[in-house]
Formats: sequence, structure tokens, C-alpha cells
Amino acid sequence: MATDLLARVALALLVEPGSRALWAAVSADGAPATLDRLLGGDVAEPSLRATVLARLAAGDPRRQAEVAVRKTERMGARIIVPGDEEWPAGVAALETLDLDVGGRINQDTRPPLCLWVRGERPVGPAFQRSVAVVGARAATSYGVHVTSEISYGLAEREWTVVSGGAYGIDAAAHRAALAAGGVTVAVLACGVDRPYPSGNAALFEQIAEQGLLISEWPPGADPLRHRFLIRNRVIAAATRGTVVVEAAARSGAAQTMGRVLALNRVAMVVPGPVTSAMSVGCHEILRGDPQARLVTGIAHVLDEVGRVGEYLADPARGPERPWDNLDEDSALVLEAMPAQRAITPDEVAARAGLPVRTVLRRLALLETAGLIVRRDGGLALAPRKARR
Amino acid sequence: MATDLLARVALALLVEPGSRALWAAVSADGAPATLDRLLGGDVAEPSLRATVLARLAAGDPRRQAEVAVRKTERMGARIIVPGDEEWPAGVAALETLDLDVGGRINQDTRPPLCLWVRGERPVGPAFQRSVAVVGARAATSYGVHVTSEISYGLAEREWTVVSGGAYGIDAAAHRAALAAGGVTVAVLACGVDRPYPSGNAALFEQIAEQGLLISEWPPGADPLRHRFLIRNRVIAAATRGTVVVEAAARSGAAQTMGRVLALNRVAMVVPGPVTSAMSVGCHEILRGDPQARLVTGIAHVLDEVGRVGEYLADPARGPERPWDNLDEDSALVLEAMPAQRAITPDEVAARAGLPVRTVLRRLALLETAGLIVRRDGGLALAPRKARR
Repeated sequence: MATDLLARVALALLVEPGSRALWAAVSADGAPATLDRLLGGDVAEPSLRATVLARLAAGDPRRQAEVAVRKTERMGARIIVPGDEEWPAGVAALETLDLDVGGRINQDTRPPLCLWVRGERPVGPAFQRSVAVVGARAATSYGVHVTSEISYGLAEREWTVVSGGAYGIDAAAHRAALAAGGVTVAVLACGVDRPYPSGNAALFEQIAEQGLLISEWPPGADPLRHRFLIRNRVIAAATRGTVVVEAAARSGAAQTMGRVLALNRVAMVVPGPVTSAMSVGCHEILRGDPQARLVTGIAHVLDEVGRVGEYLADPARGPERPWDNLDEDSALVLEAMPAQRAITPDEVAARAGLPVRTVLRRLALLETAGLIVRRDGGLALAPRKARR
Repeated sequence: MATDLLARVALALLVEPGSRALWAAVSADGAPATLDRLLGGDVAEPSLRATVLARLAAGDPRRQAEVAVRKTERMGARIIVPGDEEWPAGVAALETLDLDVGGRINQDTRPPLCLWVRGERPVGPAFQRSVAVVGARAATSYGVHVTSEISYGLAEREWTVVSGGAYGIDAAAHRAALAAGGVTVAVLACGVDRPYPSGNAALFEQIAEQGLLISEWPPGADPLRHRFLIRNRVIAAATRGTVVVEAAARSGAAQTMGRVLALNRVAMVVPGPVTSAMSVGCHEILRGDPQARLVTGIAHVLDEVGRVGEYLADPARGPERPWDNLDEDSALVLEAMPAQRAITPDEVAARAGLPVRTVLRRLALLETAGLIVRRDGGLALAPRKARR
């Protein structure tokens, strides 16, 4: 059994995913050396030490890791780690995600150490063109209808649908993608062998057949409350963008969207009747976050993720200027940017010969694509090395 | 009969309201001299000359003006002109409104020369705290419901509701304001004696009793198609902000909102089900115009117009700094602005010790209130004379 994989599994059993401290240690010394240190009691970070000590009481992590690996094999699942060919590229964005939560840095935003997977197809390609469609468990028929339309449309056009495993919007998103004969991925907050909620058990089996079930937690892990929030960062990072269809007031949706935007992914929100409690959270996001985009259906969703996508896709076609795959207006805007200094949108509009409104939209897109940065109160070309 | 008033009425009979050329002439030489020149054939501007010649064929404008004034008096209405104590202050913003329509300047944006009024209360004070609530004729029950909630709430809190005279949202806005015992103003695109549409005749009578019927056109004038667009500028300029409740795709709503924003008024849009054709126009505005604010009910509307309003209201309380009536965050933002140079929102946030998101919202508000201007790719204090 590969030492690195086994060490990562043992670490995943010892420490909840996302830990900054653990990620830093593994990045510096590798998983096996980090595991040795933790098991030897050599843990500087107090919160990490407490966690490790508590888990050690439950038995030898190396032994438990071997059991978990065998259990995974027996159920026909697999474990993937960074460096594997099918590792989803997007989660690397979590390496530098620093989220400010009430004045302190969120400690649970780092990439997974490994992922449990059920389903035949390779994970990385499945996420290559993917959109998350998420929302309330207590969805209304309106929410389910809109979710189905968007999700079916994505699947039909060979975009992968990604969601959690909850009732309501999540389940509707998977069902529509499956109905379209498309690929759908459920990212769970518990083991891939645990149908939670159990009412979705048959759905999970279908997803495992036709798409993928993925989790950062080992088989048998419970869907603990805090795990849903930790899980959400993987959905945000691994996809091109996230659509929130319905969300109650003060639900986690605003937080999810904050994360999506912090990761430079496209944050999309479906409005609804102002008389519906299940659209209050959506309207809160649209009022509070000027970067969130209102979308009313599949056409808007494709519009938002498609253009960023067209640029990012297919990097293997040989030497190109970064704007070769951009739409015409975006290309004009990029061409109008001076080599060095920052300029205002008005100046860009004048140089490009485009209406200011068009320029503002394209600049937002180009910023999302990492081609443009804000600097000196204006906008400038991103440094060459920063352009993806 | 006052010469100025009679000349203005005659000019209103000769030329459609809003004419830039006519406004320039009246501003330079006064209404009586301008009328003399037009009647003497001394018209430089070709479009104005054509219009005047066509109308002259219908008879002597001075004589027709006298008839119109007598007719107005007989029906218990009145004519008001700029300089009258009750002239609504907001329409003066039209003096400098230059709207670009497809590469040329809209020629019909200047203030009315005079207004016909039915209703007891003085016009100016009625508009002092006013919000326009407008939308589709073919409103749905959802739109009527939301309109009623907003309109009733405004009237209850002694805000005047302003709208057109159409079926659907306009009528619902008036009805709810009347039901709340509040003040409502219908700004018509025909004579104040012409109930158009006739199905709203009883409603117009009630509005004339409890609120105001207003028009730029003399008694008997027909509700011609182009007059609705011309009329809309008065609604936008005279009010603090405009709420669009429902609008079909590619309706005039986006144009209306562009005008509202160009006048530095608050543009508010109610979202709706994405499955409703009557919300498509609303979502178009919210997607296309980053300055338009999504509102879901009376609380949001008051929030948007209230703060601007608190600052603008009651200028008679003696010497104050402009920010004395601002909320605390806005005051912090204003205090953080350097006396001369322009700075970025990030710098403002650092100086004010506020989150960037808060700063961005407050800057938008302060810009609307005329206290902050965009300059050199950043933001700066408005020149003292420009601050209202």
C-alpha cells in the first residue's frame, strides 16, 4: 500500500479536512513525515494537538487507515490524492483562500488531503466543465422547476452538474442531470457509503452509476453539522461557478457565495417571488454582493460560465495569446489596455470604441478570468505570470 | 391674464414638451419674446420651425391659449409655471439631462414650460417626499400584490406615491395609496380632463379629490404614443426614486431606469418568478445596470430613498455641515475623504476603518446625494458649490 496515500488517509482520520495547520505541515514535509510527527506528539499548533490527542484515544490511526482503505476497495470505491491524474485541478485554489470571518481567518479552507470516490469516470475531467447548482432543502415547486430547467440544460450541453446530497434543490439538480443523460457529481459531507439523507439512497445509487459520489471523509463518517460548511468549499473550488436557486433568510447561501467569489468563480443567483420565504436568501445575496450575477435560466448560466470557460478551456492547442479565445468585445477591451499603467473604464471605453456599459461587463469578466487586475484606483493588465 | 403664463400656454400648444431648442430660447429671452419670435417666423432650428408651421395652420396660438386657460379655470383646474411657489423643485434636474440615445442626444428631456393641475394640495410639497411606483399594464396578481404592499407602506409613512394613469401597476399603486389615506399623484400623458384609459375614470376622480392629477398637455390633449415617454421624464425627475414592479421584456422600463439613474435618483426594481413574462424586464434591468437596486418590499424602498432623503430634507434648519444628517457609516466615509485628491474605495475603507463592502454602499449613496464625485479613476469630495 502506498505510504503517501496511507498517511493521508490516517491524517484524514485524525484531523477534520481543511485545516490550515495540517496543510502547511503536509506541504512542507509530506504526509508520512507529518503523520510521524503528529503520532510522536510533536504538534506545535494547540487546536491541532487537542484534536489529535482526542482521536488517538480511539485507536492506532495507521491501523485504522489500513482498514479504511480495504473497506473502500471492498465497496468498489477508490481514494484519490493530489498528484493523481484524475485529481480535480480546481481545488488547488483553496491553497491560498484566506476568508475573513468576523475579523479572524477561517482555519478550515485548505484543500482536501484525499478524496473518496464512487463512480467509474475520472474525477478531474468530470469537473473540467462543471457548474454547482445548490439551494434550500425546503425547496418550493418553483425552485425545483427552475433547478430542473438549469440542470437539464447544463447536462444536455455536456456540462457536469455538481451539488450536495440534500433533499430539495440538490436532489432536483441531480435528478434533472440524470434525466438528461448527463454527468452529475454529489459531494457529500459524510462517507460515500452513507446514504444521507436515507430518502435519497436510490438517487445516490443512480449517481454512482452515471456520475460520481465524492467525499473528503472516510466510509462510515457521519454527516456532522459542521461538515456541510467545510464540504461547501470543495464544491465552490472544483466548479466554474455556483448557482443558488432558493435560499431562506440568513441561510448559509450568502457565505457560500462569498466563498465562490473569493475563489474567483462565478456566483449566480436565481431571483424569485418576493413573497416566497425561499427566495429571501437569494435576494439578500443580490442586494449585498454587487459581484453576484442574477440569472433567470440556463441561457444566462451558460452566458456567465461559458465565456470564462471558453477562455480557460483547451490550453493544449499550442502557443496562443491569452485573448485568442475571447469574444470580440472582450478582445477589444484587452487590446485597449496599456502595457503598464492602470486606466479608468471610461478611458478603456474611449480607446476600445465601445459603450462604457459593455466595457464594464467585459472588465468584470476579464478580472474573473485573471487577465485584468484592479490597481491604483483603476484597471490594469494582470502581470504575465499571474494570467492563467 | 399674466403674459408669461399665457405665452407659456401658447408655446405648450405649439411645441411638444421637453424641446431642448424651445427651452434654450425661453431661458435666454423669456416666454413672451420667444412666442413673438416663433409667430414671426423667426425660427432657426429646423425641427422647431416645421412643428410650429404645422400647428399655426390650426389657428392663432394666443387666442387658443386664452381658450385653454379659461377651459382650465372652468373645470376647476389650474396652470402652474416655474417660479410659482408650488412648482416642483425636482424637475429642474431636467435642465441638464443629456441622454445619449444611439449616439445622438435625446432632444425631448428639458423641463415642462407649465403644468396643468387638478387637486387641492400644492404640487411642490406633494413631491417633496415622493416615490414613483410604475410597471406593466398587463400586471399579474403577484405584481398587483407587491405594488399594493409598497404603495400602501409609502402612503402610511407620508410618502407621496407617483405613477402614470395606466391599468395594472399604475392603477394598483394609486389605489393602495388612496386606501391608506395617503397622497397619490397621477402624471398623465394627456389632458387632465381626459380620463385615459376610460376604465380608470372613477380612479382619476378619486385621485383629484385626495391627491393630484398633473399633465404637461392642455385640456383635451390626446394620449399620443410618444407622449408617454416624454411624460416619464417628469415622473423620474420630480420624485426621489422610482420602483419598477413588473415589466415585460424589452419594455420601456430599462429606458425609464436609465433616465432615473442619469438624474441621480434611486432606481429600484422588484424581482419576480423567472417563469413570469412580466418579470423579465425587471430582471433585464437588474442584470444590465449595476446601479439599479433590487428591492423586495416597503422596508427596502424606505431604506433606499430614506437615507438620501434624510440628508436632503429640511434644509431650513440653519447652518450645518452637509453630513450632519447622515447615518454614522456614511459620515465616517465622508470624513475619511481627503480635501482635494481622489482616492480608491480601498483607501477610504482603510482610512474610515470600515469594511470595503460597507464603504462601497455608502459611496454609492453619497454619490447619489451629490456629495461625492468620480474623478481621476477614483472618488473625491464634490466641489462645495455642487453639493446640494
